[in-house]
Amino acid sequence: MKSTDVFFVSDRTGITAEALGSSLLSQFESVEFNKIHLSFIDTLDKAIDAVEQVNRASSKAGSPVLVFSTQINHEFRVMMSKSDCVFFDFFDTFISKMERSLELKSSHTAGRLHGLSHNSNYTDRISSINFALGSDDGLGAKSYENADLILIGVSRSGKTPSCLFMALQYGINAANYPLIEQDLDNTRLPESLQPYKHKLFGLTINPIRLQKIRDERRSNSNYASLKQCQNEVKRAEDLYHTNHIPFIDTTQTSIEEISAKIINKLSLR
Amino acid sequence: MKSTDVFFVSDRTGITAEALGSSLLSQFESVEFNKIHLSFIDTLDKAIDAVEQVNRASSKAGSPVLVFSTQINHEFRVMMSKSDCVFFDFFDTFISKMERSLELKSSHTAGRLHGLSHNSNYTDRISSINFALGSDDGLGAKSYENADLILIGVSRSGKTPSCLFMALQYGINAANYPLIEQDLDNTRLPESLQPYKHKLFGLTINPIRLQKIRDERRSNSNYASLKQCQNEVKRAEDLYHTNHIPFIDTTQTSIEEISAKIINKLSLR
Repeated sequence: MKSTDVFFVSDRTGITAEALGSSLLSQFESVEFNKIHLSFIDTLDKAIDAVEQVNRASSKAGSPVLVFSTQINHEFRVMMSKSDCVFFDFFDTFISKMERSLELKSSHTAGRLHGLSHNSNYTDRISSINFALGSDDGLGAKSYENADLILIGVSRSGKTPSCLFMALQYGINAANYPLIEQDLDNTRLPESLQPYKHKLFGLTINPIRLQKIRDERRSNSNYASLKQCQNEVKRAEDLYHTNHIPFIDTTQTSIEEISAKIINKLSLR
Repeated sequence: MKSTDVFFVSDRTGITAEALGSSLLSQFESVEFNKIHLSFIDTLDKAIDAVEQVNRASSKAGSPVLVFSTQINHEFRVMMSKSDCVFFDFFDTFISKMERSLELKSSHTAGRLHGLSHNSNYTDRISSINFALGSDDGLGAKSYENADLILIGVSRSGKTPSCLFMALQYGINAANYPLIEQDLDNTRLPESLQPYKHKLFGLTINPIRLQKIRDERRSNSNYASLKQCQNEVKRAEDLYHTNHIPFIDTTQTSIEEISAKIINKLSLR
């Protein structure tokens, strides 16, 4: 398998450089990419060191390595662009076109945003994390009033990671309600959820996958038996259908996609 | 204040488009950007609708709006590029240069990665989230053995959000240890942490900010008094200094930056 070094270079966290870089790299499945992260390159010494690392890697490989950069500092960016690499400049490539379009000069300041997308501020996100953790601890009904949405699903269907991701990424207050046996005895919505039907979103999962996940937690238990998993999943889906609750299958879906799809469906942005 | 509509268009979650787009927009502080998210544009109908939304916005504004796109589907991308907008193509701009450099054709497949950077796979990240939550529930010492790092700090200094972010973003097992009164009575490291000194990273925070955060939790308590906050923070910092534990001030730092700096410092990638 062809393999090559790839550097992600940034003044700050490098999250944006890696996000776009990795998306682009994923278009070349037949190559193995060895990823090197050069974050917080914000002094001349560090910039010189970064250029040397890149030059060494290219020299060792016998051909120029790839460099994905979100570096904003002009001097450091130029240094890297002149090194022995194929340089992908995520900043400079677009900034001049933006300046022309907006008829303004850019401020060329590093780190105003930290790469991750958030229209909500820091305090909102922290408070949403605390909200998700509180809901997870069984605060339950008390939190539904203030929830932006309530995820429902059987145990281990992916509620908690999704709630946490929505909090961290978007500052959204996502509560969760675990569907237990007695909730699934009929297709009536549990009493505490009934006032919040418009906030509900269901998760489902392939029973075989669920069985594997549960087995890692409580091996050979009834809880982790395939029969139990099949039964719970089927009844949860019946509940969603009967009550017209939108739902998503988490089996093959990343946390990012689950979250983005739910937010999209409930028009939460 | 000048204001303009900005569209983020993607076949998938739109997280990458927003990450890079927002970084670029943050370079123009004097403009108010009204952000519109068009995610999961993966059918002809949705693509037509997206183009119409963009055209309407430009027509209403009297000048072309901005479109940041990570769309991979060739047909939909061309449609958008011909609409009435200033088009920033995060995919096509770089992919040809990559094809030449790698001497390969790209697969033009949407959503192999979902924007967020993760060298770790889905299962790793979920398991790291469970690890962080378990550590948070006081599993404590039991979890330190398997931890990639252990965050220490006084109550509400930012340990939990940072641990969760490192789990979600990087699949890193981050445990946390809250420094309580009795830990701070002297500058000796708490017993249970001593075998893991190389894994420790400290958090500190401005006492006035800490006081505000604590006051929201337990108003007018001794816990939330400025004197108590000053005292705890000072003694925590003494502990870090005496034991040569690296630490970071979380007061003005985003969760992304805290996490990336710690990972950088402990060389965890």
